[in-house]
Amino acid sequence: MINVVLLGCGNVASQLYDAFSAPSNAAVKVVQVYGRSAKKLLPFQQKTPVTTDLQQLTEADLYLIAVSDEAVISVSDRIPGEGKLIAHTSGTVTMHAMNKLHHRGVFYPLQTFTKGVSLDFETIPLCLEAENEENYILMDKIAQSISSHVIPLKADKRRHLHMAAVFANNFTNQLYRMAHEICEEHRLEFDLLRPLILETAQKVQRTSPFVAQTGPAKRGDVKTIEKHLELLSTKEQKEIYTLLTHRIAKIYGKEL
Amino acid sequence: MINVVLLGCGNVASQLYDAFSAPSNAAVKVVQVYGRSAKKLLPFQQKTPVTTDLQQLTEADLYLIAVSDEAVISVSDRIPGEGKLIAHTSGTVTMHAMNKLHHRGVFYPLQTFTKGVSLDFETIPLCLEAENEENYILMDKIAQSISSHVIPLKADKRRHLHMAAVFANNFTNQLYRMAHEICEEHRLEFDLLRPLILETAQKVQRTSPFVAQTGPAKRGDVKTIEKHLELLSTKEQKEIYTLLTHRIAKIYGKEL
Repeated sequence: MINVVLLGCGNVASQLYDAFSAPSNAAVKVVQVYGRSAKKLLPFQQKTPVTTDLQQLTEADLYLIAVSDEAVISVSDRIPGEGKLIAHTSGTVTMHAMNKLHHRGVFYPLQTFTKGVSLDFETIPLCLEAENEENYILMDKIAQSISSHVIPLKADKRRHLHMAAVFANNFTNQLYRMAHEICEEHRLEFDLLRPLILETAQKVQRTSPFVAQTGPAKRGDVKTIEKHLELLSTKEQKEIYTLLTHRIAKIYGKEL
Repeated sequence: MINVVLLGCGNVASQLYDAFSAPSNAAVKVVQVYGRSAKKLLPFQQKTPVTTDLQQLTEADLYLIAVSDEAVISVSDRIPGEGKLIAHTSGTVTMHAMNKLHHRGVFYPLQTFTKGVSLDFETIPLCLEAENEENYILMDKIAQSISSHVIPLKADKRRHLHMAAVFANNFTNQLYRMAHEICEEHRLEFDLLRPLILETAQKVQRTSPFVAQTGPAKRGDVKTIEKHLELLSTKEQKEIYTLLTHRIAKIYGKEL
């Protein structure tokens, strides 16, 4: 059994806790959860020892820091002692930014975490980095216990992957938001778009976005594009519409 | 039994054909399929009478024109006789652009159709418009036989809905494409992003995009944003990144 101390009690920490604590997981045990707020530790308290004091950390094979990007370094700096294996879950923080008295690593789950929505870790890519092979092997065992998609990924690639994820998740969601705004403005139910949104994402599970592309820009349908630019009510909407439309048209060799 | 002649043999026509012809559908029968190309009619030929000649159309309660936006008007103009009920499946063409010798309507399924990917029509919104109540009632029966999400929608609203769908589908897919490009450039598997893309879409099935938003722009995380702008390799990527980032930051009251 590999013992893990989990530092953090937000969405990522909760989901990791649940995945490690699943009855099917015989490889890993969460032996303690650390959090700044006693209140946020309450959900863990009935199941696992908890602490709000970093001086009281239990011995473990891995200290997994699942806190916000901004807090990773300061938490790592306050982990007492030396030579422990510590890893964070951030896509943006480098391994070497953490406390150099310890062995450092990265345990980055590429997914969007939402409060109260439990995810199946099995399909979530876990991107690992460690300072030496021994540490990597241990982290790999821990990762394999919850996901079947574990890969080694160095800082530079992780940074680019995180940036790609900003497009695939943050920006995509903002386009949903823009569609929502158009619906609200014209008293249309956003519900009408939900099946389309889901199918759009499902389509690229099987094919590439290049193949999946459809729409007026791809067809070079200037009439519809002009109509849309008339219908859009803000400068910002028009700018985003124009930029993405020109990009699509260019890729598919259409002149607008 | 309501008799329908289907005009078209592309993705939308095929999927409508399958939905109408499902054993569970006792209300509607496709009595004929029209297509310009005898070859494209082959898949239908074994199951239903087909024709490549608009002069040979069978009598039916509805002539459903499921062809490309550009071809709708010309097909409608060549439907012989008068007083028939004809409807198209386009989000952008107005009902009144069609042949005025007939009763005209719109039967717009809000979804993205891909060759070879069969969809469950049950959840697909069908937006209907007709010139009179009698026609509407008939089209509504036909629509209800395949979907549980049927609504009346006039031209003006349909146009806006179609535009919202361009954001939710076409532009979203283009952002997947941009993420794919970043992956290719840095030798990262696009597969790593697929679970994230799916969860991003699934999230807004349960909540609003406003609530679902995450990421550096929402947090006002200037350091990460600046780093990303350095990492992006083309002017176009930077422009789209900047526009969407500023939009998100503004919505959540963050200064960049």
